Amino acid sequence: MATPQIELSGQLPAKDTTDGEAFSRWYVTAIRRSELADYFEAVGGTMVIRPYGYSLWENMQAGLDQRFKATGHKNAYFPLFVPESFLRREAKHVEGFAPEVAWVTNAGGEDLQERLAIRPTSETIFGHFYSKWIQSWRDLPVLINQWANIVRWEKRTVFFLRTTEFLWQEGHTAHRTEEEAQDETMRMLGVYADFAETEAALPVVRGEKTASERFAGAEATYSIEALMPDGKALQSGTSHFLGQNFARAFDITFLDQDGERNLVWTTSWGMSTRILGAMLMTHGDDAGLILPPRVAPVQAIVVPIPTRTDEDGARVSEAVERVLRELSASGVRAEADWSDKRPGWKFNEWELKGVPLRIEVGPRDLQQDQVTMVRRDSRAKEQVKQSGVAARTSELLAEVQQALFERSAAFLAANTHVAEDYASFREIMRDQRGLIRAYWCGSEECEARIKEETHATIRVIPEDAEAAGPGKCILDGQPARKQALFAQSY
Amino acid sequence: MATPQIELSGQLPAKDTTDGEAFSRWYVTAIRRSELADYFEAVGGTMVIRPYGYSLWENMQAGLDQRFKATGHKNAYFPLFVPESFLRREAKHVEGFAPEVAWVTNAGGEDLQERLAIRPTSETIFGHFYSKWIQSWRDLPVLINQWANIVRWEKRTVFFLRTTEFLWQEGHTAHRTEEEAQDETMRMLGVYADFAETEAALPVVRGEKTASERFAGAEATYSIEALMPDGKALQSGTSHFLGQNFARAFDITFLDQDGERNLVWTTSWGMSTRILGAMLMTHGDDAGLILPPRVAPVQAIVVPIPTRTDEDGARVSEAVERVLRELSASGVRAEADWSDKRPGWKFNEWELKGVPLRIEVGPRDLQQDQVTMVRRDSRAKEQVKQSGVAARTSELLAEVQQALFERSAAFLAANTHVAEDYASFREIMRDQRGLIRAYWCGSEECEARIKEETHATIRVIPEDAEAAGPGKCILDGQPARKQALFAQSY
Repeated sequence: MATPQIELSGQLPAKDTTDGEAFSRWYVTAIRRSELADYFEAVGGTMVIRPYGYSLWENMQAGLDQRFKATGHKNAYFPLFVPESFLRREAKHVEGFAPEVAWVTNAGGEDLQERLAIRPTSETIFGHFYSKWIQSWRDLPVLINQWANIVRWEKRTVFFLRTTEFLWQEGHTAHRTEEEAQDETMRMLGVYADFAETEAALPVVRGEKTASERFAGAEATYSIEALMPDGKALQSGTSHFLGQNFARAFDITFLDQDGERNLVWTTSWGMSTRILGAMLMTHGDDAGLILPPRVAPVQAIVVPIPTRTDEDGARVSEAVERVLRELSASGVRAEADWSDKRPGWKFNEWELKGVPLRIEVGPRDLQQDQVTMVRRDSRAKEQVKQSGVAARTSELLAEVQQALFERSAAFLAANTHVAEDYASFREIMRDQRGLIRAYWCGSEECEARIKEETHATIRVIPEDAEAAGPGKCILDGQPARKQALFAQSY
Repeated sequence: MATPQIELSGQLPAKDTTDGEAFSRWYVTAIRRSELADYFEAVGGTMVIRPYGYSLWENMQAGLDQRFKATGHKNAYFPLFVPESFLRREAKHVEGFAPEVAWVTNAGGEDLQERLAIRPTSETIFGHFYSKWIQSWRDLPVLINQWANIVRWEKRTVFFLRTTEFLWQEGHTAHRTEEEAQDETMRMLGVYADFAETEAALPVVRGEKTASERFAGAEATYSIEALMPDGKALQSGTSHFLGQNFARAFDITFLDQDGERNLVWTTSWGMSTRILGAMLMTHGDDAGLILPPRVAPVQAIVVPIPTRTDEDGARVSEAVERVLRELSASGVRAEADWSDKRPGWKFNEWELKGVPLRIEVGPRDLQQDQVTMVRRDSRAKEQVKQSGVAARTSELLAEVQQALFERSAAFLAANTHVAEDYASFREIMRDQRGLIRAYWCGSEECEARIKEETHATIRVIPEDAEAAGPGKCILDGQPARKQALFAQSY
């Protein structure tokens, strides 16, 4: 996705998902105009998350953090600086990350003896400390997460999806046995899938990455993948089984119950502000963003309708305040828009910002003891008695959340294809895109040639890859035990 | 404070506040052994905040964040990288910060054309964006805070007090008038004082800094200062009135109601993990830390007492679970220690960790339908009927919070001196330390000579500096309108 120019006024570009450039223009313009984020031109690849966007991220953080704590994890904070020698201790790790590292070479007025990487990920730092802290099997498992900023050098910026600095969480765990570490890896993949589907209303497919897409230093990488409206997949969270690679590199050993000194088994898993991008891209429409109610900073916007008489005005003000009080008491994040703009202007602005529900409070409605509610997703409008506003708001918010998920799930289902032969594979990938399920013999050569010819990569080997029994590789016809899920991707 | 060696076993060093080195040894040993934090020897000046310490910080963050939101501020996230040219735009700002900056000079495999500072503070970045975002008086005030990591190069590490990388929040606001910006500056100083006293149980004095201690680029700097048990002051939060300095440097203008284009007035204010250090240093004793209940990760630790019979064991287990359920239902953060250590060992460990209340559940107490509660601060012990555990816990936690504050407030009062002449000033500063209130003529020469001769600096010009009427400068006898508060400091 290129970085298009953003026009800050005039009609929002339509969400044309058949034209990559137009779709990209819609995406960045909707984000910029809704004041979720802004570019920082002075440092290529970076951005600022504005209050509206950060509030959205805070709500998503809360949803994830609560799931981490419920599965026994605790938060901590580890240093930003990774000495170059740390990165070099795991050969594949440094090979994978070195090209995108930002290096501090001078500090406090002096050249440093050893360059310091701004953390591109923190397996090495956690490894160093786990080696200090873990002595005995009684200290295991160690289950720590951190919320942090990460730097991986990028020249282009695509809000949330591709930036030099981004925010994420990274979990790092150490276990006594291989099985426990594998269980943890899959548990956190499940947490990510549940979070994406429940909070972000994003249906995802999950499975294992192939060796070519594996995290640098992992034995196995699993991911959840969402399907964007333009038919490209977006990796939205990863969970890695690291085996004993980092335990070996950082000498993380423990005295086991039988008196033997053994290496621990480790995992790591991360989800970033990228999921926010996936969510925005998925749910919006020509009028702007649509935010899932569970994470929306403002769930209901109350718009007072102008009145001709002061008496009506007082009645409207009073009703608006009452609605806000009741919504707040029932735990709904609601705001009133008292600005002096015209109602139509306000409707557009809050639609652009993706607020899931609008509540119009006007003199005519009030005469009949009611207000008007408008859903952002379907634009369905209804009159609701004043006494029922809080209850109906909660119902509608739950319905919008459900509808967004169902619409995306239907899209995912409709755009998941099975290709029987390579000709139809190529045709689907050229005309419709989406996910293609096809047999793969397991060779990296086939994987690479398919990528070269169709721009599709294997997103995951799904959990039910062997369910259809053995078959023949879509490319070279060799025997294949598994089906893979292919897609073009962000 | 030097960086002493830490012994990880044996007796904890006594909290001897008369001997700087001993006090420092107590401080770092208590922190390291209670697993609040650890050194990162590979990068001088840095540390890791372990789960127990981070949980404490999360509770403190929540207390601050809630106060920021209640005063109309919103959170956002701004870039980590500050181009060198940005720092240079405000002359005093770059002069103040350049010596402690860490520079990124190479990234993505290439040398950068312009060095990038890892943010030592973010006035320049916020200024850049405020200049883009603010157009009209309708856009004002802009009230944004960010929670972020900050880097200022240090060679020595003193946990929480002095580290190369630390966590903080920084508020940056822009206003239409000078008066509004001044009001904001004082409002946030008040928020800091309220937070310190209410949550951290730290009494503070507040006032304005002299020119020599002013934030680089500010018109006026205000701070809250806490008095440590060794008689040294610790600056625990600052609020800056920046005038139009950054507005001018970053061209932050707006179209006012009268059609004129004017510069905005800005403020900034910050509180860091330093406050955590101040709190730990203040409340602990020879047995370890004492955490104020309002921010303690674990407010009550439940210790099951071993039993001789399985029947008694089952009764104890059942009672412990019931206590945990009831405490959790009444909003108390409680945990049980089921490890196989001896009770005495557990008592020591949880005292070291500073948990404000211990609840012992043993067979003898249960026969009389009661449990034993022990306060961490006073060691006061009492038997409480099982049905009253939750209610009594809440009362005791509130009492401990209050007692910690009162003890510190009494210490602050007892160690705030008034010096009538320079001889007694020197004597107090040599023998007792603490805060000294004394007349100051306002000359930087006097300030510097007092510092040279007594190691005391002016911590603040207190709000009631003129209350005692005019007098004569403690050093040169010149007429002085104000009294200043002097102290040695961290």
